[in-house]
Amino acid sequence: MNRRKLALLFVCLFAASSPALAEGPRARDIGIPLAGKPGALNAITDVAGIEIGQVTLIGGEGALQRGKGPVRTGVTAIIPRGKDSTAPVYAGWETSNAAGEMTGTIWLEERGYLDGPIMITNTHSVGVVRDAVVGWIVDKKWPGSWFTPMVAETYDGFLNDTDGFHVKREHALDALQIAKSGPVAEGSVGGGTGMVCFGFKGGIGTSSRIVTTTVGQYTVGVLVQCNFGLQADLRIAGAQVGQELKGRYAACRSQPSGIEKLPECKPGAEKPGDGSMIAVIATDAPLLPHQLKRLAKRPAHAMGRLGDIGRESSGDIFVAFSTANPQLHSQQMDNISVAAYPNPLLNSIFEGAVQATEEAILNAMVAAKTMTGRDGHRVYGLPHDEVRAILKREGKAGR
Amino acid sequence: MNRRKLALLFVCLFAASSPALAEGPRARDIGIPLAGKPGALNAITDVAGIEIGQVTLIGGEGALQRGKGPVRTGVTAIIPRGKDSTAPVYAGWETSNAAGEMTGTIWLEERGYLDGPIMITNTHSVGVVRDAVVGWIVDKKWPGSWFTPMVAETYDGFLNDTDGFHVKREHALDALQIAKSGPVAEGSVGGGTGMVCFGFKGGIGTSSRIVTTTVGQYTVGVLVQCNFGLQADLRIAGAQVGQELKGRYAACRSQPSGIEKLPECKPGAEKPGDGSMIAVIATDAPLLPHQLKRLAKRPAHAMGRLGDIGRESSGDIFVAFSTANPQLHSQQMDNISVAAYPNPLLNSIFEGAVQATEEAILNAMVAAKTMTGRDGHRVYGLPHDEVRAILKREGKAGR
Amino acid sequence: MNRRKLALLFVCLFAASSPALAEGPRARDIGIPLAGKPGALNAITDVAGIEIGQVTLIGGEGALQRGKGPVRTGVTAIIPRGKDSTAPVYAGWETSNAAGEMTGTIWLEERGYLDGPIMITNTHSVGVVRDAVVGWIVDKKWPGSWFTPMVAETYDGFLNDTDGFHVKREHALDALQIAKSGPVAEGSVGGGTGMVCFGFKGGIGTSSRIVTTTVGQYTVGVLVQCNFGLQADLRIAGAQVGQELKGRYAACRSQPSGIEKLPECKPGAEKPGDGSMIAVIATDAPLLPHQLKRLAKRPAHAMGRLGDIGRESSGDIFVAFSTANPQLHSQQMDNISVAAYPNPLLNSIFEGAVQATEEAILNAMVAAKTMTGRDGHRVYGLPHDEVRAILKREGKAGR
Amino acid sequence: MNRRKLALLFVCLFAASSPALAEGPRARDIGIPLAGKPGALNAITDVAGIEIGQVTLIGGEGALQRGKGPVRTGVTAIIPRGKDSTAPVYAGWETSNAAGEMTGTIWLEERGYLDGPIMITNTHSVGVVRDAVVGWIVDKKWPGSWFTPMVAETYDGFLNDTDGFHVKREHALDALQIAKSGPVAEGSVGGGTGMVCFGFKGGIGTSSRIVTTTVGQYTVGVLVQCNFGLQADLRIAGAQVGQELKGRYAACRSQPSGIEKLPECKPGAEKPGDGSMIAVIATDAPLLPHQLKRLAKRPAHAMGRLGDIGRESSGDIFVAFSTANPQLHSQQMDNISVAAYPNPLLNSIFEGAVQATEEAILNAMVAAKTMTGRDGHRVYGLPHDEVRAILKREGKAGR
Repeated sequence: MNRRKLALLFVCLFAASSPALAEGPRARDIGIPLAGKPGALNAITDVAGIEIGQVTLIGGEGALQRGKGPVRTGVTAIIPRGKDSTAPVYAGWETSNAAGEMTGTIWLEERGYLDGPIMITNTHSVGVVRDAVVGWIVDKKWPGSWFTPMVAETYDGFLNDTDGFHVKREHALDALQIAKSGPVAEGSVGGGTGMVCFGFKGGIGTSSRIVTTTVGQYTVGVLVQCNFGLQADLRIAGAQVGQELKGRYAACRSQPSGIEKLPECKPGAEKPGDGSMIAVIATDAPLLPHQLKRLAKRPAHAMGRLGDIGRESSGDIFVAFSTANPQLHSQQMDNISVAAYPNPLLNSIFEGAVQATEEAILNAMVAAKTMTGRDGHRVYGLPHDEVRAILKREGKAGR
Repeated sequence: MNRRKLALLFVCLFAASSPALAEGPRARDIGIPLAGKPGALNAITDVAGIEIGQVTLIGGEGALQRGKGPVRTGVTAIIPRGKDSTAPVYAGWETSNAAGEMTGTIWLEERGYLDGPIMITNTHSVGVVRDAVVGWIVDKKWPGSWFTPMVAETYDGFLNDTDGFHVKREHALDALQIAKSGPVAEGSVGGGTGMVCFGFKGGIGTSSRIVTTTVGQYTVGVLVQCNFGLQADLRIAGAQVGQELKGRYAACRSQPSGIEKLPECKPGAEKPGDGSMIAVIATDAPLLPHQLKRLAKRPAHAMGRLGDIGRESSGDIFVAFSTANPQLHSQQMDNISVAAYPNPLLNSIFEGAVQATEEAILNAMVAAKTMTGRDGHRVYGLPHDEVRAILKREGKAGR
Repeated sequence: MNRRKLALLFVCLFAASSPALAEGPRARDIGIPLAGKPGALNAITDVAGIEIGQVTLIGGEGALQRGKGPVRTGVTAIIPRGKDSTAPVYAGWETSNAAGEMTGTIWLEERGYLDGPIMITNTHSVGVVRDAVVGWIVDKKWPGSWFTPMVAETYDGFLNDTDGFHVKREHALDALQIAKSGPVAEGSVGGGTGMVCFGFKGGIGTSSRIVTTTVGQYTVGVLVQCNFGLQADLRIAGAQVGQELKGRYAACRSQPSGIEKLPECKPGAEKPGDGSMIAVIATDAPLLPHQLKRLAKRPAHAMGRLGDIGRESSGDIFVAFSTANPQLHSQQMDNISVAAYPNPLLNSIFEGAVQATEEAILNAMVAAKTMTGRDGHRVYGLPHDEVRAILKREGKAGR
Repeated sequence: MNRRKLALLFVCLFAASSPALAEGPRARDIGIPLAGKPGALNAITDVAGIEIGQVTLIGGEGALQRGKGPVRTGVTAIIPRGKDSTAPVYAGWETSNAAGEMTGTIWLEERGYLDGPIMITNTHSVGVVRDAVVGWIVDKKWPGSWFTPMVAETYDGFLNDTDGFHVKREHALDALQIAKSGPVAEGSVGGGTGMVCFGFKGGIGTSSRIVTTTVGQYTVGVLVQCNFGLQADLRIAGAQVGQELKGRYAACRSQPSGIEKLPECKPGAEKPGDGSMIAVIATDAPLLPHQLKRLAKRPAHAMGRLGDIGRESSGDIFVAFSTANPQLHSQQMDNISVAAYPNPLLNSIFEGAVQATEEAILNAMVAAKTMTGRDGHRVYGLPHDEVRAILKREGKAGR
């Protein structure tokens, strides 16, 4: 795809503070009861310093023509300390089912920290985004001579021409360039543009928690690219929403499709495919690398709470970092003094992470609207009114 | 403690087929809706060949006197292929929060299989049980010259004189000796005798699922020693049971206690301590070691479904094994042919494991009755009628 | 860099069977005593079915101009079952010091097998090569809808304009296209073109061992991209060759250089930088995934034998696979029967892997000739005659 | 074995400062050239604060009678900060081949530090020693209510009645009780009493290195229980000592033996069995847990240097800890400030660890004298004069 073709795309650049962000309702707005106290933005950007930039690529309709579209994809950039800092963050990663890719994990595991941004895109665009980040870091003359950026992915091939490689180097650079603090666009944006979550339209979601401990108040923020789960399994606030809705909101095709088994767009069978889940967990509590690895294990508990079982072909891969200890330096040559958080108080952080992951997933699903992509494949947005009605019936809405 | 003192204990040996086992209700019997199809016994012993033996040690009341009691502990033995087989089982292990011990994991991870029994006891009795198993294997003249048995633990010091080391070599040997197939005693038995789960009395629980796949029908069985979770967090079938009950069922002391903050036995504050969770997952599907490691990751999803967040001081450690491929031999000297299960069909197994783990935990809690232990510490059994009432109110009971 | 500029480069495509391969001496030819029995080619391609393709990019001289050169880099492709097979191979990976990148490891670890080629290139070209492999697999219409290729790297920035991104998509595709069985080019070729090993010129090396066990005769083959180690540490056959040679063969600059501390090209101080080591271990013995992970731990023993300590900034990352069990299929939907090798006989395979890794490293160093790259940086080839003389003096040559 | 029988044993308690320690030569004394600068004691106790206590059990001769003997075993205690400190140490562990046991690793990996001693004994005595340590900690009223002590093992069944369980609780307690700083007994003492290393008599060995970095001078100390390797593989300072000696120093039987293939005590075939290697690495450099895990990977490089390949049935398990940051507390409830060592300077520590591990293994072998154990099995001590002669011939002795 050259520049001219690209012009035909609806390319949407969401800096974190885009005014478009406040438009739609979020999970709490439709009556989903959620525990814990969110931060001001209820977003990962409540952790000071974090910048988010997203580029959304939407273009074309109809039958899949590899390399031409339809295009429903993008890239999301998370910059832990913002573009103007070269200080690394202590970090750790984990996976509860690893059917996917997150580059940079090997070196992260060994050295305990991460420098540069975390990028999320579609499965087949990991490489171009990775090299773009290398170039970006080199251009900015960061300390160090070689880099292994962290790029994660989930698969959007149900709606997007994934094999057409529509994410280009400039899209990744744009996402980095426009990254800002402030509110974060959710739903079908950035890397999450073409994603499917519990059989409904998914994508990017975020949430945060303020946790108060005996050593101070901290923020835990989570951003997810949500592409996992079976529709039948979805539980919201304990209500088996998926069981009730699955007959009428199955993914379908509005025109002849390459996927034989997909029903026409009237109620029918569920799309069998599974996806993946990327979670980025941030905190300003001063956790050391081994503690952040522990923190990165918590999304599985949130996914279980929503009814998921950790499906075999799902790439559920998580990274956690701490913005504390800004004195870190990738070229550190002295013994430095770092703050270390007490293990016994990790529970508050863990609880915040589970709660914020659960809400971030729900926020992604509540924000994402029905989308039709390649071959007329249609994925429905979570029907807000029906969800609210189910929760009300079980005495849960509005709590 | 010598033999004479031991006679004063109520030592209870539950072979798997003890007639006492059918007495109490199980989770389904009190109206908890649970998905999936259990096996005939709804127990890990639905996987053919598995033998379970449990020794329960209960004795003494009143103030803690280290070495004398009160005693509320025991040991549970799981023998994957039964006492008369020396064939190993392919196995894998995982942990979602590792504040605990399971011996034998290092060698298991390296060689991919497990020979001998899996034992579960209290934290401070791991050693004596481990050496007892070594002796048992040597006495039986199994092939091989050295052994690293698998012994797991959770901490029962809230009710039991854990530091008194009341589990003796003969108790472990008895558990092995009486191990049988058939029904499995649940609640305050064996290693689970003194355990606390979501602030209620916990212990041993088990469940199973029959899963039907395109390559055949398989059984997944789970046995847990349940000692984890905060009372306030407990969700049953999506209902926030813990939130409703916590005011009136907090762990308490019926007499002056060594734990200052524990309320007298009228409603009050919750015991802050956290415990652990051991899960043993068995299947007759022919999974290879790397697939069993994946299976061993699933209990976290079930724990999340019940409201847990994976607390910092909880030793949530899981092992999964397959009884298929009986031709395995620890002294294998030939290339052998083994059956290998297809990855894409793991979801049925994973789902069965999540469902059976959830039910095993609930079975443990439903079976365990209120217990008073050291220093008058009292832990309440889950109030069946109240749980049923809550579920009814949310339209969930009896489903 | 467009196609026209590329024409100015000396682009060298080494299929495995290139006639140029037999030209130079190998480690044994200069009198280095090495244990064990190599295969016919003494190369990874002695394991039947493996195809190797290498593209070498050499162009320009003088001062570094980012994006223009000088260029000293390339890409090496290892295709486990050859281009015409879509059958995966059981595989495992390990690292003894992970200052680097190997993509695809997360999913490999989870599912136990690998489909598609293994690629090795320079650090900053991992992305472009990765996406090229995705495209190649999609073009060939392999089963499956998404792919996470395995691409490893070591850093060649001492000689190469690494930040100039000279490896292009077509180079990776060419390496795949020309991949063949037969002899393998060694030294400054493919991904190894610009590499430095123990302070001497390094790069690609390979070796194999025929191991005879009670269950049959097997081949173990190793291919390394050798870029690790300090010159002073090098031991060959136990002789401290590095100590003797370091004064006269230090990396140096033949013209004014950007690296201040680098001596002019007369004997002087040693280049302080460290590199990395990628090893690909192949065998036709029927090892299961957990056994292959064990096999992938053995290069550290070979590196230790050569005097290395596992330096902090070295990305020593290894993957092992088995070409046995050709019935494997990434879309496997049935229980299949697979051959499983006996653990007690792994020692022969392990020994073969250590020996072949040691020899592959030495072959890389013996084959690679003195190279001058960016900014006049010069790295000397191992001086064959001096090595032979040292070994003779210690009574070791020719053994 | 009761107390009366025990009296017949030669029970030897070696506190670290026992006067017997200076008696025999060490590796350097017989002319083995070794790089780096050792500390004053050339022992792990050069790291300030570390206390070592060893109990050696030797008794009986002749035919094996399980439970009676002959006895050739013991227990070694390493107390990182000495008996009088309850402060934990940051620590990490690794294994290069895990055919063995080290308890406590799961919890160590999760929380990043270790409290209490590290114990090493024989394979079948891990349990009794583990529970003894629990009791010791409880008796000393350390903070915390439950403990998962670290106990490692290697197998001494070639010389010892391992299945007779001769190590008793009181032996472990004695080892802790007598633990002291100062010189450390080597060879056939403590847990190493019955061990075999490279086919020669092995056991306990220790060494240290003083490393000077730009941020200060640090000590790295290593203690090994050496029970691994084939005689034919042994290389000392690059000389293939094993190849030269193996014909005349094979393990043998001086009387009719249970092991059919063992030759009578005249030169013959080699004992085929493999053992294990435990290494404890200590430093006063302020490494964080993830850095200590890296440090714990280095023994494989030292073992490779000595000719080992990492044999399949060898339990090569390593733990590394730092005595810096004495402000650590297992009940830490505040954010604390900890010193963190720079990654780029880890190489000095790594190099010290590889060198000290190599020397510790050699020290164990040089100190251990020929021993005859169960069934007349005899294992020869390394013949000092022959080793010196071989090194001289290759121009290496005395360097």
